[in-house]
Amino acid sequence: MWAPVINPPRTALSDRSCVVLGGGGFIGTNLCRRLAASGVHVRAFGRHAHFPNQMDNIEWYPGDFRDTATLANAIAAFDVVVHLVHATTPQSSNLEMAGDVESIQASVAMFDTCRKVGVKRVVFVSSGGTVYGRAQQTPTPETAPTEPITAYGVSKLAIEKYLGLYERLHNLDYRVLRVANAYGPFHNATKSQGIIGTLISRALRGQKIEIWGDGSVVRDFVYVDDVVDALEAAIVDRSDQRIFNIGSGQGRSLRDIITMIERQLAMTLDIEWQAHRLQDVPASILNIDRARDVLGWHPKTSLDSGLEKTVDWWKRR
Amino acid sequence: MWAPVINPPRTALSDRSCVVLGGGGFIGTNLCRRLAASGVHVRAFGRHAHFPNQMDNIEWYPGDFRDTATLANAIAAFDVVVHLVHATTPQSSNLEMAGDVESIQASVAMFDTCRKVGVKRVVFVSSGGTVYGRAQQTPTPETAPTEPITAYGVSKLAIEKYLGLYERLHNLDYRVLRVANAYGPFHNATKSQGIIGTLISRALRGQKIEIWGDGSVVRDFVYVDDVVDALEAAIVDRSDQRIFNIGSGQGRSLRDIITMIERQLAMTLDIEWQAHRLQDVPASILNIDRARDVLGWHPKTSLDSGLEKTVDWWKRR
Repeated sequence: MWAPVINPPRTALSDRSCVVLGGGGFIGTNLCRRLAASGVHVRAFGRHAHFPNQMDNIEWYPGDFRDTATLANAIAAFDVVVHLVHATTPQSSNLEMAGDVESIQASVAMFDTCRKVGVKRVVFVSSGGTVYGRAQQTPTPETAPTEPITAYGVSKLAIEKYLGLYERLHNLDYRVLRVANAYGPFHNATKSQGIIGTLISRALRGQKIEIWGDGSVVRDFVYVDDVVDALEAAIVDRSDQRIFNIGSGQGRSLRDIITMIERQLAMTLDIEWQAHRLQDVPASILNIDRARDVLGWHPKTSLDSGLEKTVDWWKRR
Repeated sequence: MWAPVINPPRTALSDRSCVVLGGGGFIGTNLCRRLAASGVHVRAFGRHAHFPNQMDNIEWYPGDFRDTATLANAIAAFDVVVHLVHATTPQSSNLEMAGDVESIQASVAMFDTCRKVGVKRVVFVSSGGTVYGRAQQTPTPETAPTEPITAYGVSKLAIEKYLGLYERLHNLDYRVLRVANAYGPFHNATKSQGIIGTLISRALRGQKIEIWGDGSVVRDFVYVDDVVDALEAAIVDRSDQRIFNIGSGQGRSLRDIITMIERQLAMTLDIEWQAHRLQDVPASILNIDRARDVLGWHPKTSLDSGLEKTVDWWKRR
């Protein structure tokens, strides 16, 4: 029987060599494992590989992103640089703004290095949850005003704009993914990298969980495998678009998430509710039509299924 | 006869003490002279006073903006800081992006200092000609997308956004003026601070003038006295608005400007036309309705009259 080819890849992913900056972190570990499994020549660069035993067929290249000479050696001869490094988190950034400005500085220096060593494309993971600030329109499209209320959002946005300049001035091709609240395996619980991992890991250890606000904040939670799908699509995309929202396209309250995790774990979470934080926008939901239409991407994992996989991963640790 | 009071001032300007960072430069010299004439306690801070003999009743405080200790001493006990310092020009910025990122860094450090020493307001001069990039809408309102095509525009925009954070997080009040192409007396010809000053000064010295492109680019030229009016209004404004376009609201081609200057000088300029520069947007015209409506400001000086005054100033130098 004849089988039609659906959505043929526009460029073969396996033709591209990739170096992943921050390759030892949460999204980085997931991405590197997938790229290696897809037959891509992949190098993970970073200060720490948080899951060194899970990096089969991935070359680990230790180094600090801000060390220009080491970085140049690490990325030379690679086609694509995936940029996942940031000095702060959305939570910490307002308290250490100098770190955010340093992230801008190091990123611009990195783009210069890319240009000099002949990297073909930079794929930058920006922040769908912070670049828009208090969006007037939800789900929020890429064309909405960008008025971040955290230093993290300002610095991510500035880096996006410097990338735009580097393409214009130096033909350094790029794609930006404004990723929503990603969750899933290889979360590093010691860093504040997302509420879902924190909730599950602390619950499994019987620990109290501090939550700011009353749980009414709404977020767009996207399973990390779906983010990795989007990153693969961004590596080979040939469209004229540069910036893509990557989320589930749907909002869920933190209370909903807690209820779902309690159901999965068959236990009641020990939550200590704290005063609302200034840097929390009430709702963040991304409009993902552009990624659907242009990248041919869509999120495949329901929240139920994603949470189940995440809980399984934490239990098996 | 009874005279109605039109537009009563919302706060008396003379009640506010002002320190002007970059007070020895083009806009800075004009602003400090006006503030001093208005009876404001004004201190000019900067590396160089380009017109030291023109600074009557203005305290000159020499220092480098990036030197935090000196800056803290310079601004302590002042109500308002007017921020006119930037490491690059729109023309140079793409060649020295590190300098632009350094301007972001130094500005954020300065906001921290303001917060610590109790400054009440920061008035920041941003760039109406570069923050919007290739605007789809001209005249361009403050709400238009901001997609700079120069590093100068990216860094000015990032500084605006950090100001927004500082107000939100630390109650540091601010106003931003996105100033168009300012021209007028106290232009410093050795720095590339605007085509009108360059054209007049070189013409008067019988020098050849290099111009990039064919002269068809359209710019919004605003006389520096009108910019100073807007700065005075921004120092005392009590509205909820933070960002104001300041320009003439009208576009003039570079060819028009050359013709007008030739008429004023009664001579033909010796122009050498060069290839178009990448960082030049074809047209930049600001919509100034917000400043009209909210600040009660409007540009008072026609281009003819402003050029005449500027030519006179250069001839008297």
